[in-house]
Amino acid sequence: MLPNSFSHPIEGETSAEAIPVAAFRLVNGMQVVVIPDHRSPVVTHMVWYRNGSADDPPGKSGIAHFLEHLMFKGTERYPAGRFSTLLAAVGGEENAFTGWDFTAYHQRAPREHLSACMAYEADRMRNLVLDEAVVATERAVILEERSMVADAKPAGLLGEVVASAAIPCHPAGRPIIGWRHEIEGLTRADALAYYRRFYTPENALLLVAGDADPQAVLDLAAGIYGAIPASGLSLERDRPQDPPTRAHRLVTLADGTVSEPRLIRLHTVPSPRTAGSGEAEALELLAFLLGGDETSILHTRLVVERAAATRIQASYWSSYFAGRSRFTIEGLPVPRMTPGDLDQAIDAVLDGLRETGFEARSVERAKTQLVADALYARDSHVSLAQWYGMALCCGLSLDHLATWQARLEAVTPEALRATLPLLSRQGGVSGHLVRPEAA
Amino acid sequence: MLPNSFSHPIEGETSAEAIPVAAFRLVNGMQVVVIPDHRSPVVTHMVWYRNGSADDPPGKSGIAHFLEHLMFKGTERYPAGRFSTLLAAVGGEENAFTGWDFTAYHQRAPREHLSACMAYEADRMRNLVLDEAVVATERAVILEERSMVADAKPAGLLGEVVASAAIPCHPAGRPIIGWRHEIEGLTRADALAYYRRFYTPENALLLVAGDADPQAVLDLAAGIYGAIPASGLSLERDRPQDPPTRAHRLVTLADGTVSEPRLIRLHTVPSPRTAGSGEAEALELLAFLLGGDETSILHTRLVVERAAATRIQASYWSSYFAGRSRFTIEGLPVPRMTPGDLDQAIDAVLDGLRETGFEARSVERAKTQLVADALYARDSHVSLAQWYGMALCCGLSLDHLATWQARLEAVTPEALRATLPLLSRQGGVSGHLVRPEAA
Repeated sequence: MLPNSFSHPIEGETSAEAIPVAAFRLVNGMQVVVIPDHRSPVVTHMVWYRNGSADDPPGKSGIAHFLEHLMFKGTERYPAGRFSTLLAAVGGEENAFTGWDFTAYHQRAPREHLSACMAYEADRMRNLVLDEAVVATERAVILEERSMVADAKPAGLLGEVVASAAIPCHPAGRPIIGWRHEIEGLTRADALAYYRRFYTPENALLLVAGDADPQAVLDLAAGIYGAIPASGLSLERDRPQDPPTRAHRLVTLADGTVSEPRLIRLHTVPSPRTAGSGEAEALELLAFLLGGDETSILHTRLVVERAAATRIQASYWSSYFAGRSRFTIEGLPVPRMTPGDLDQAIDAVLDGLRETGFEARSVERAKTQLVADALYARDSHVSLAQWYGMALCCGLSLDHLATWQARLEAVTPEALRATLPLLSRQGGVSGHLVRPEAA
Repeated sequence: MLPNSFSHPIEGETSAEAIPVAAFRLVNGMQVVVIPDHRSPVVTHMVWYRNGSADDPPGKSGIAHFLEHLMFKGTERYPAGRFSTLLAAVGGEENAFTGWDFTAYHQRAPREHLSACMAYEADRMRNLVLDEAVVATERAVILEERSMVADAKPAGLLGEVVASAAIPCHPAGRPIIGWRHEIEGLTRADALAYYRRFYTPENALLLVAGDADPQAVLDLAAGIYGAIPASGLSLERDRPQDPPTRAHRLVTLADGTVSEPRLIRLHTVPSPRTAGSGEAEALELLAFLLGGDETSILHTRLVVERAAATRIQASYWSSYFAGRSRFTIEGLPVPRMTPGDLDQAIDAVLDGLRETGFEARSVERAKTQLVADALYARDSHVSLAQWYGMALCCGLSLDHLATWQARLEAVTPEALRATLPLLSRQGGVSGHLVRPEAA
């Protein structure tokens, strides 16, 4: 262990839940979380940076995601592709992803390669080499990616405009991949400035799940990551908040390539970080009860009974926002109905629920299902590590995660009913994807 | 004249038009424009700063306007109110205003008080004194102002949401006065940081119109404003651009206090700065022909012939944006029609015009009228100075202003028709102000 790399447990952040978790912080500020699971001799090694597309500077949307791509372009020690090849040769794999509030890099490998993964990530936290040609090529790759997910895909475009209308100030209203015209202008200098600003030990979270002992992980991390000096840069984020929504907004996208008309409704609602006690769990439950599966209320009323839609789905984006979060309802109307008809039919169902409330029996069944789904998902230490990483990057504590199930089980039908005004027409944005003749 | 304050004419910026204009730049970077007019012994003295609400930092909307208020709170030499009192005693008056791209302070006074006005403005460019109590009081004043123009005025709120939907990235999409929740958080430190950033000689434009000789104004300015050292701060502005609009967006604001349902349509269009040759003038002409007076096309078709609206008006905001500008159509539907009906009726008129084009005779009549209006407006040296100040702050040149009339007169009916796709439904935002039962 290097002299500047002692470490200590973070007070108040060890958890008493069934999942044993150990948390530490290196002296350079880097947080270390270990979730041991000895069922197979494999580890998941993840480095999370607490910055994502919501930290893209104004006019530079897409830079977080762009840099995520560029992080694979190599250092002097590990030229592009070399580490991937080494990892694949031992049966490992690696990838990365960018969210609004985080960017994460991860490898899964046999446990004896944990220190090699650390050496690789620690090296590219500091020593990324970028040349103009590489940046230009990757920009073209990302523009092509953008064409696939949005510019040539009306449903993707609709999602972008709906979010932009619903979230006008907070940077999470912008697409993670960035606006095309801004991606086109991203330069090597932009990428390097962003890298130096955010790729620091203070801003990083090391998450190791799997066949590893917390103290051994800590010792390794202190020697490898601990050798990186603290940057001294602030962790403060510039996150303008949105004004209150007082008007319903409708976005209509008419496009000749639309084969399936579609409805997207977006309501901004409290995130687990900003919600009152139990409110985030009530919203999770509400999404599941409304449109979580084929027994859900909207599916039963609108797909089965009224045959107004062929598919309908509701989601509460509970782990993705440090600020407010999104509640979305998406549906595909049947040919004789328009997205507008479906939109109104959903309002009618929601209005009815505000009158009648929810049946206690369905609420209990939904809780059981959500807890089971969570257990299944967390059975994989990859998805378990993702759940922890996202939550910690969004400012939730280990205690918060440890007590999630208890909070979910405490949600009453009355608490659920009390969330319905969050989905009122006035506060939401509807997006209608239609064929040109219907616009 | 102080040794660091010599000056020289700005090359290529003197104008050959009927209005004689002299332009100089002091060595500290401050621009000086003089528009002599000796009909009466009065001068208009304006200092324009080339920053406005579009320079409000993210999360600090309203700071440009807030600082404009605070600029009247006094310096050591001129405690609050003293200069206003002195000015009023000699028959002068003063005021200020904030736009997206500028903040301007102006006095009108008998010509012998020009140097006093300069001394006052030069002093408060550098020596503003702000205490916490004054900032808190002014914040309350501004929140009250905001209540009057927006929070308690549905038509104002609708305008804000429409602009926010139409202009999601560019900071000109935010209200100049600021969002309430952000105004509430503006501090003395924010105001001072903004003041130090932007209130510099390089960023300032002195505009003197009226009974003054250019060389005498320059000598005075060099002595008074020239004594302020250059700040060395960049004039670059952070102005993220909006993505292309591919979807029609509808904002519906239902409010119990609505007495008059209302329609606002907003299309973002090229500004004089970004337009192709003659395009800005075609848009000016288009706004006038569509909804400039009671002989206009929309008024004739929708108010007179169809009795669908009681009022309708179209505007091209030609002098307000360094980036893209706004084209708006606003109307009040008659009681039996909804804002949505009126919106569709306008589309029908525009579709018809795309087929038929414009009559050469009406186009010529409109040109004559616009040129006459401009001459009348510029007959007042206050409004003449405003026209110059806005244009120069938005990056237009004196030559551009001098040749405006020739460009306007060259617009053909075909060029007018070619602007109509800029008002297509797909690219615009409609705002409907309705009573709650109609939402």
